[in-house]
Amino acid sequence: MSKYERFSKTQLLEKKNELIESYKKFKAKGLQLNMSRGKPGADQLDLSLGVLSCISDSENCKSESGSDCRNYGTLDGIPEAKRLFADMLNVSPEEIIIGGNSSLNMMYDTFARAMIHGVLGSDKPWAKLEKVKFLCPCPGYDRHFTICEHFGIEMISVENTSEGPDMAEVKRLAENDDSIKGIWCTPKYSNPEGITYTDDVVDAFAALKPAAKDFRIFWDNAYCVHHLSEEQDTLKNILTTLRANGKEDMVFMYGSTSKVSFPGSGVAMMAASKANIAFTKKQLFAQTIGPDELNQLRHVRFFKNLDGIKEHMKKHAAILKPKFDAVINTFEKELSGKGIAEWTSPRGGYFISLNTLDGCAKRTVELCLEAGVVITPAGATYPYGKDPRDRNIRIAPTFPPVAELETAIDLFCLCVKLAAVEKLLEA
Amino acid sequence: MSKYERFSKTQLLEKKNELIESYKKFKAKGLQLNMSRGKPGADQLDLSLGVLSCISDSENCKSESGSDCRNYGTLDGIPEAKRLFADMLNVSPEEIIIGGNSSLNMMYDTFARAMIHGVLGSDKPWAKLEKVKFLCPCPGYDRHFTICEHFGIEMISVENTSEGPDMAEVKRLAENDDSIKGIWCTPKYSNPEGITYTDDVVDAFAALKPAAKDFRIFWDNAYCVHHLSEEQDTLKNILTTLRANGKEDMVFMYGSTSKVSFPGSGVAMMAASKANIAFTKKQLFAQTIGPDELNQLRHVRFFKNLDGIKEHMKKHAAILKPKFDAVINTFEKELSGKGIAEWTSPRGGYFISLNTLDGCAKRTVELCLEAGVVITPAGATYPYGKDPRDRNIRIAPTFPPVAELETAIDLFCLCVKLAAVEKLLEA
Repeated sequence: MSKYERFSKTQLLEKKNELIESYKKFKAKGLQLNMSRGKPGADQLDLSLGVLSCISDSENCKSESGSDCRNYGTLDGIPEAKRLFADMLNVSPEEIIIGGNSSLNMMYDTFARAMIHGVLGSDKPWAKLEKVKFLCPCPGYDRHFTICEHFGIEMISVENTSEGPDMAEVKRLAENDDSIKGIWCTPKYSNPEGITYTDDVVDAFAALKPAAKDFRIFWDNAYCVHHLSEEQDTLKNILTTLRANGKEDMVFMYGSTSKVSFPGSGVAMMAASKANIAFTKKQLFAQTIGPDELNQLRHVRFFKNLDGIKEHMKKHAAILKPKFDAVINTFEKELSGKGIAEWTSPRGGYFISLNTLDGCAKRTVELCLEAGVVITPAGATYPYGKDPRDRNIRIAPTFPPVAELETAIDLFCLCVKLAAVEKLLEA
Repeated sequence: MSKYERFSKTQLLEKKNELIESYKKFKAKGLQLNMSRGKPGADQLDLSLGVLSCISDSENCKSESGSDCRNYGTLDGIPEAKRLFADMLNVSPEEIIIGGNSSLNMMYDTFARAMIHGVLGSDKPWAKLEKVKFLCPCPGYDRHFTICEHFGIEMISVENTSEGPDMAEVKRLAENDDSIKGIWCTPKYSNPEGITYTDDVVDAFAALKPAAKDFRIFWDNAYCVHHLSEEQDTLKNILTTLRANGKEDMVFMYGSTSKVSFPGSGVAMMAASKANIAFTKKQLFAQTIGPDELNQLRHVRFFKNLDGIKEHMKKHAAILKPKFDAVINTFEKELSGKGIAEWTSPRGGYFISLNTLDGCAKRTVELCLEAGVVITPAGATYPYGKDPRDRNIRIAPTFPPVAELETAIDLFCLCVKLAAVEKLLEA
């Protein structure tokens, strides 16, 4: 297969007509498919049905401390949940706070508290500063960027390489501007690229000397146990790495069971140094009487321990791997060798990232939408929704059944090609 | 029985010795009782066990809209939960947002959003103002005051009469100081006095013309369906009353099932005008992906409708009424006619409020604690924990079994008397 860029104008026009014929056939099907959100499919949700029924009488409502989880409880979670999820995030039970159903909510709350009171070591609440900036490795997770936008925090894009954020750039920026208060990270099976930060990147974080003494790494470890097969990425423990350099207060870590048990009814958690946890708990007292401990207990009863979670994740992988394979195989078949797209082949997580030719992402997504397939909006993976090269598209292959997914991806590849041909004809 | 204040010094000393003898006997018992928190007892929690088991398979995880409540959902709740709890708060389903497990958390979040962005109609975020003040009818709920303290909001005490807040004082303050941004209210079976605002008080709120155009009434209707018997207080609908005066944006209402189903695992909600709800939902998008819809569905399945909640609350009342009666009867028997205490006899809610002689509340609570009975700290019912007359004590009779409660209240009455005699001997 030859590269589209070597095509003559006539060849491009021929290709375009051919693609438009195929596109018309897709449109005639009246598809209504959605690949826009990283949602588990119904078969995945069924894997955790046991969570729902494992607590039903007054006796099994008690935590190991003897407290009745139906009643008002503690601020930071029941001991057995702290132990289980500390294991999952690779921290100690003294370094974790168990929250409600949403880790995004815990991140938002961390920002809200930082704005109103500052973090441990802040001279001033962030809201009292003239300017607060945040580093945003891109492509990244749109909901992280929405939080910054909500709080009026200026976002600075940093390139995400195949090893993690461009740490030379992170260093150059963070070490020379004390209004830069932190960085967003999705270190494992990242959203959207599915890459995992290398040890060198984690070490570079530990070597970082930010100008702002209250700089914080927001380490959203959403996919820490979300492997697709036995071939797994490993992520170096940032908390212990920072601690070895005397900087353990520099990171806030987050995780959840949103894609382990249920997205809507899972358990979220935040981990950090003991000093950060103590500081946070003092503020949390004003915020709530405490999270839903019954739901914590349900999760502990169902998963029992980290091995239980790992076994459970294999069942998710068995459902998800064929979907990822279907996408990657179709990309290989339809798009490789044409010089019009590049994509990632993650070993875990929920997404695949694809780059079109520059200036083709929006058009590709638009073409898909017109033919009945909803894709994550182009630009969503960049701060303010603006992809400077208009090329990155996030593919979320998990929700549709395989047959629907295959149809959607066939259409998607067609749209990538059509948008590329249109672009090349403009030149 | 004669009043203590008419006693001679000799009589007081005799009485003191007699009381100390009894107190020693109590101390010898080595009691370990807790009447400090408004927690339901285990028998009350058992009433709602059906909530836990009513959802267990994939089919009954679906809301009436067809959405799978296990997966990511909506920001503001499933339709059937909005309908049920709108009925409970006496608003329309378009005027409600269903939240997580804690209405206190929703109030805190409302403040946080107001600080960062302001409320509908604010010129500036509250955090950007030099001064923000709040009116705090007293005695009141300590956790409300903690929220203000957390956000650095200056609290101004206003007297709570038997009809509700002293509205002449509220008017005088709110209409002449635009840094006063709102007022805390627990309008029904108030915490701690158990009184319900009269129609005149609600009408006075609707007639209020606050100097701050973004003034907000925080209407914490925590005990809206929490009657102790068929003799029930009724509360005029503040939202419709305000609407009739063109001021429907002036109130935020809150409620929850914390003391209907489970304190730790209930459902919380916020109600307001449609304009306020739209404004809030726009901000909520940054904050979370959505609350636990499965728990909403559990509650709807179990309670079905408002009649279901009302019937359920009768079962709570059957457990709680004897406890309230035990306290009030003992107060009557031990304290009446002595001129040393006054108390309320609520028809609902979770608390009884008692005023000692001025300057005797702390001492009374301290004496109880020394003999093994924990009472809500004196002062907790006032901003900054400071009761200017040191006389108000909140009694929370719900958690201990009746026999323990009777012992605790016997001791409490003894301590009220002993503290009073000590005080009178000082004079």
